[in-house]
Amino acid sequence: MDSINIKKLAEALNLSTSTISRAFRDNSDINGATKARILAKAKELNYQPNHYASNLREQKSKTIAVIVPELANNYFSQAIHGIERVARENGYHILIYVTDDDYKKEVTFIRHLHNGRADGIVMSVSGEANDHNYLNKFGSKRLPLVFFDRIYEDIDTPRVITNDYNSSFLATEHLIEQGCKRIAYLVVNKSLSIGKTRMQGYLDALAKHQIPFEENLIVDCSNSYEENSIIIKQALTQLKPDGVFTSVERLAFATYYACYDLNINIPNDLKVISFSSLEIAPLLNPSLTTITQPATEIGEEAAKLLFTILDGHADKNLPNEVVLASKIIKRNSTANG
Amino acid sequence: MDSINIKKLAEALNLSTSTISRAFRDNSDINGATKARILAKAKELNYQPNHYASNLREQKSKTIAVIVPELANNYFSQAIHGIERVARENGYHILIYVTDDDYKKEVTFIRHLHNGRADGIVMSVSGEANDHNYLNKFGSKRLPLVFFDRIYEDIDTPRVITNDYNSSFLATEHLIEQGCKRIAYLVVNKSLSIGKTRMQGYLDALAKHQIPFEENLIVDCSNSYEENSIIIKQALTQLKPDGVFTSVERLAFATYYACYDLNINIPNDLKVISFSSLEIAPLLNPSLTTITQPATEIGEEAAKLLFTILDGHADKNLPNEVVLASKIIKRNSTANG
Repeated sequence: MDSINIKKLAEALNLSTSTISRAFRDNSDINGATKARILAKAKELNYQPNHYASNLREQKSKTIAVIVPELANNYFSQAIHGIERVARENGYHILIYVTDDDYKKEVTFIRHLHNGRADGIVMSVSGEANDHNYLNKFGSKRLPLVFFDRIYEDIDTPRVITNDYNSSFLATEHLIEQGCKRIAYLVVNKSLSIGKTRMQGYLDALAKHQIPFEENLIVDCSNSYEENSIIIKQALTQLKPDGVFTSVERLAFATYYACYDLNINIPNDLKVISFSSLEIAPLLNPSLTTITQPATEIGEEAAKLLFTILDGHADKNLPNEVVLASKIIKRNSTANG
Repeated sequence: MDSINIKKLAEALNLSTSTISRAFRDNSDINGATKARILAKAKELNYQPNHYASNLREQKSKTIAVIVPELANNYFSQAIHGIERVARENGYHILIYVTDDDYKKEVTFIRHLHNGRADGIVMSVSGEANDHNYLNKFGSKRLPLVFFDRIYEDIDTPRVITNDYNSSFLATEHLIEQGCKRIAYLVVNKSLSIGKTRMQGYLDALAKHQIPFEENLIVDCSNSYEENSIIIKQALTQLKPDGVFTSVERLAFATYYACYDLNINIPNDLKVISFSSLEIAPLLNPSLTTITQPATEIGEEAAKLLFTILDGHADKNLPNEVVLASKIIKRNSTANG
């Protein structure tokens, strides 16, 4: 029982091993009844064909790699869910890699994946401030790659993004309409394209409403909880903004914590809006006004783009761009008292 | 450039392909300086040895599979983080599989993994109400397997759990000390061992404080958001509990939503405590009292147990049990007004 292999299965069925092997390959030349008999017996004896050997033959791992900067962010866990669903429908598994926003890890993962461990990659990038030309060095051997959310503008490959400029413009305008005149923009790395695009929406909304731009209201935060706590408290006390627009949800959480500590009332003293996919945003104190990206759908679209390449229906270097719309959901953090 | 292979690399270095190949294997008989020269050239030319072929030789995938019931739960994303960290330290990658609490998916994943796709499995189970004897059918060929959090009691394999009985006892006692007399226990599947263990702590705390047990205060919820909303609203209006102890965090969120809708004030009318690893529990309205499991540490311990087996230092069928302690963090949802 515990040493079932193809030979024993063949003996049990009185068939050749090559017939058994054919039964486990799709589109192979084998009688339907025989195939059914083999699969039934295989199931009974708990036999599984060796995956490594059979995939080596096909040169396919039937796996797609998903590279994300972090897992503890509702946006990414929802996007992964979407990717996984489409992968499963296509008979693929997903391998999830987390870079912790570290460019070096991203490079290591990508190099490693080119060993044959995956057939394609769906990635939200971590190294925009660094040299991302490493992706071009693989030349035509580069695995099919689709970016989502955080992308490298200069790498020719399909991408799925949201209408960040537009959302940021509307988010800033919402704060202005609620009476804010000094709106701080909190960003983790303002040199990232996603940070820049979101900032441009903020700048243009200010300009439209003739609110002068103050450079020091752009607050560059970090990935460290402790550092952000200091940076944000300093910004709130020194700059005295009446509105805060945060580019990622953890900066909104950090702002809430800072306001609790500094006795700043949200929304009376300060209104807060954030990009966030947090499902319990309505349960926060106060409930958080969010720009919510369709995270699951973004993951699904990215995986679909990858499969059009894997199935040979699209060129892997074509910078196809899919843009999905986010939604602003108004809640108490931007309400008027 | 784009067609670098072992032969071209060998030519560029004026060495044999077998020397190149040895440089990429650990513990192989090759001069240190030569190895360094090969690795440097390989890096320069962006050459990577074929993973599938070399691992087929070693019969190792250098991958561990992580199977979890869901990703959109802070507990699991933190546990995965812990597993990933230990895997990386051991030169392994992790493959993450999400079952959506579906037993059939779990079985499919496990069968598939026995094809050579992974060297070992770390799993939080989904099918306790079903037949889990399927794991024994692999006999001695079963991959090394470590359970964490949700386990099958009857499968002999190492496991990492938390002191759930004790935590539940203390959580219930905390509600009693805060004045609660009618404490509802909300559980997703009360036949799961984790639900049962947690329920026993609840029952024993009631008994200790001479509070009679009422069967209908055990509220069996579902995995559907909509169904839970109905079940919980009905329980709150008909049973009129003054305390709620929830076995998973999403039932606490559902309780909050129900209370908002029903105008039930937490904590004045109803006190709430929940198992939860939510980092923003202090930001909820009101801040949520939690039993917080050391999720990252649980993941790390589970991965470490798996590596003691993979490294040949422990028998894979030894039901080693590691028990870690949770912490009760008291916040406003159980405060006295």
